[in-house]
Amino acid sequence: MNNFIYQNCTKIIFGKGTETCVGQETIKYGNKVLLLYGGGSIKKTGLYDRVMQSLKDSGIEVTELAGVKPNPRLSLVKEGIDLCRKKNINFILAVGGGSVIDTAKAIGVGVPYNGDVWDFYMGTAGPQETIPVGVVLTIPAAGSEASNSSVITNEDGWLKFGLTSEVIRPVFAIMNPELTYTLPDYQTVCGAADIMAHLFERYFTKTKNVDLTDRLIEATLKTVILNVPKALANPADYNARAEIMWASTIAHNNLLDTGRIGDWASHKIEHELSAIYDIAHGAGLAIVFPAWMKYCYKEDVARFAQLAKRVWNVDDNMFDMEEMALKGIYALENYFSSIGLPVRLKQAGIDESRLEEMADKCSFSGTREIGNFKKLSRQDILNIYKLAL
Amino acid sequence: MNNFIYQNCTKIIFGKGTETCVGQETIKYGNKVLLLYGGGSIKKTGLYDRVMQSLKDSGIEVTELAGVKPNPRLSLVKEGIDLCRKKNINFILAVGGGSVIDTAKAIGVGVPYNGDVWDFYMGTAGPQETIPVGVVLTIPAAGSEASNSSVITNEDGWLKFGLTSEVIRPVFAIMNPELTYTLPDYQTVCGAADIMAHLFERYFTKTKNVDLTDRLIEATLKTVILNVPKALANPADYNARAEIMWASTIAHNNLLDTGRIGDWASHKIEHELSAIYDIAHGAGLAIVFPAWMKYCYKEDVARFAQLAKRVWNVDDNMFDMEEMALKGIYALENYFSSIGLPVRLKQAGIDESRLEEMADKCSFSGTREIGNFKKLSRQDILNIYKLAL
Repeated sequence: MNNFIYQNCTKIIFGKGTETCVGQETIKYGNKVLLLYGGGSIKKTGLYDRVMQSLKDSGIEVTELAGVKPNPRLSLVKEGIDLCRKKNINFILAVGGGSVIDTAKAIGVGVPYNGDVWDFYMGTAGPQETIPVGVVLTIPAAGSEASNSSVITNEDGWLKFGLTSEVIRPVFAIMNPELTYTLPDYQTVCGAADIMAHLFERYFTKTKNVDLTDRLIEATLKTVILNVPKALANPADYNARAEIMWASTIAHNNLLDTGRIGDWASHKIEHELSAIYDIAHGAGLAIVFPAWMKYCYKEDVARFAQLAKRVWNVDDNMFDMEEMALKGIYALENYFSSIGLPVRLKQAGIDESRLEEMADKCSFSGTREIGNFKKLSRQDILNIYKLAL
Repeated sequence: MNNFIYQNCTKIIFGKGTETCVGQETIKYGNKVLLLYGGGSIKKTGLYDRVMQSLKDSGIEVTELAGVKPNPRLSLVKEGIDLCRKKNINFILAVGGGSVIDTAKAIGVGVPYNGDVWDFYMGTAGPQETIPVGVVLTIPAAGSEASNSSVITNEDGWLKFGLTSEVIRPVFAIMNPELTYTLPDYQTVCGAADIMAHLFERYFTKTKNVDLTDRLIEATLKTVILNVPKALANPADYNARAEIMWASTIAHNNLLDTGRIGDWASHKIEHELSAIYDIAHGAGLAIVFPAWMKYCYKEDVARFAQLAKRVWNVDDNMFDMEEMALKGIYALENYFSSIGLPVRLKQAGIDESRLEEMADKCSFSGTREIGNFKKLSRQDILNIYKLAL
């Protein structure tokens, strides 16, 4: 186990009806709020009205910014920064999923910064402060509600980059599983793939002797795997929705990183897909991860066999752990298919025409390797794209 | 799953050599520090010198208070409060295990309070503020390093009561598993029993649909169960010590309470034992828990069968889940015995002479029931003591 530092101060307010306390929580931090959201779904469901009422009851002045898209764009971040400066905003409330939260985080660090906020995503500067960000979560997927990361797409070159900083953790996250009843099935399963991918990225490590975190990751994976079909069968199954929602946070709040180094190559490989083709991040991950696993499992067959046994209930075969490992990978692929996710690029309408371009971008034209479990060169990345066709 | 609020801001600094950063962390909060510890073991091991050097390097003025005993006493808390007031102390550093940390927490809330600090433990007042407390942990057991609780024994009547408040979480916990190499075996296993008891108290719930937290608790239990014998076989097994130490925090930092209501009767039943007989809390728990389980398992046989299967690898028997449940309880009892813990009162030198007195105290003379999984009357408590003889 490696040395580590872990601290996560995000206050989680979880359960039925919890969005009605958003005003009370917000007023602790600010009285001039930017309310950030995506399309109109929060208006259709009545969530918008309940949030506005609660903010109003606490005497909060609200400025709205709508229109956050999946794979959220830098242009909207900049619009938000300008708006916050003009209106002297002192709190940002993100009502939505990962794209809305990631946009809020970017605006939050952008407002007090003199340079271009994209610097933080390029890694040429690090944020020192932020306008506080709060969350009303509507999609369990990205785990951004309690994470230290934000991913933004720059339309100039369609670059999709992530920022990691302790500064950007939300101060609170209000999580009502009832709000996820109305999610289309496809968003539910894309969210599940995202959660599972966060767990896999952490699970596949070269760090030895990480027994507790291995088991905590497996526990979280099993919970997601068992509850997603329940939520699909009955979208208003509160308990299934609650398990998935809480798992989404645990999967990405950095607790499961403690003492180990995750891989994260699959996320980078997927980012090129969703940057160019604008497919759902979760769908991209469902395609990339099985391919990555098939390409990389020989790095540590025992680890893949352990996952197969403990999570997929694959029978022990101590004489052929490779068989166990492969059965686990196929079980994952079958599971993704069974809940309606694509597991091949072609199923998402993507052909081989731009694989070279994506491998170039992902490897910075062959100048960087990605991944920690197995270091991947440009050629490796290309091979994985091809395996995913 | 129940609604819940979860927030835990304790900064965990975990790993080899981490105690050398104690000065840097402390100076963020205060420059006049009360250094609190137990007997002389931290001097023998050199830890005292390293901590003092680090504090000195950060220009911190140190006042010492030593002599914290297991089942820590109110009299020392009051001495600490007086000392802090006299010396204008603005930070308390606890170097030790749960008793030292719990004492530090009590002093912390006592200093700014005008009344008697025991009010907080009697529940007649709630703490509003504290002097910040930091920790250098030497015994993985109580989980007090990141918890919101403190247990103190009032020598006047030998009352052992707990305080629970978000105010008292330590601001940081420095956790170096190497510091536990020199623990006597008996302290290692008493610590393990304490950790496991914290997990059992949470596991045995009447709250339905708590799949994720069930699995997280099981994961943590398995980790402790597998690693304690390794630490006994080789006290300097870093990885075994690290797994146990991190598990001790996870078991009691309230993450595993989320959405569920724990039982906590066994802790109350044990507190009477250690208040009167001054035995190690962990040893008392190793005696009480199997008896409590035998007395209460019929409340929810399936839950006990699930634990038996998932944690103790008991074979499925869907035709007789009671058999599974009992096998799990015996497995626990055998496990405790195998690592050198008492599992009967007589093994700890305790006879039947004061059982009635303890049942009286534990039930406030028959005026309160304890426990949430099964409500226990004075007679139930007495029956459990007798079952533990």
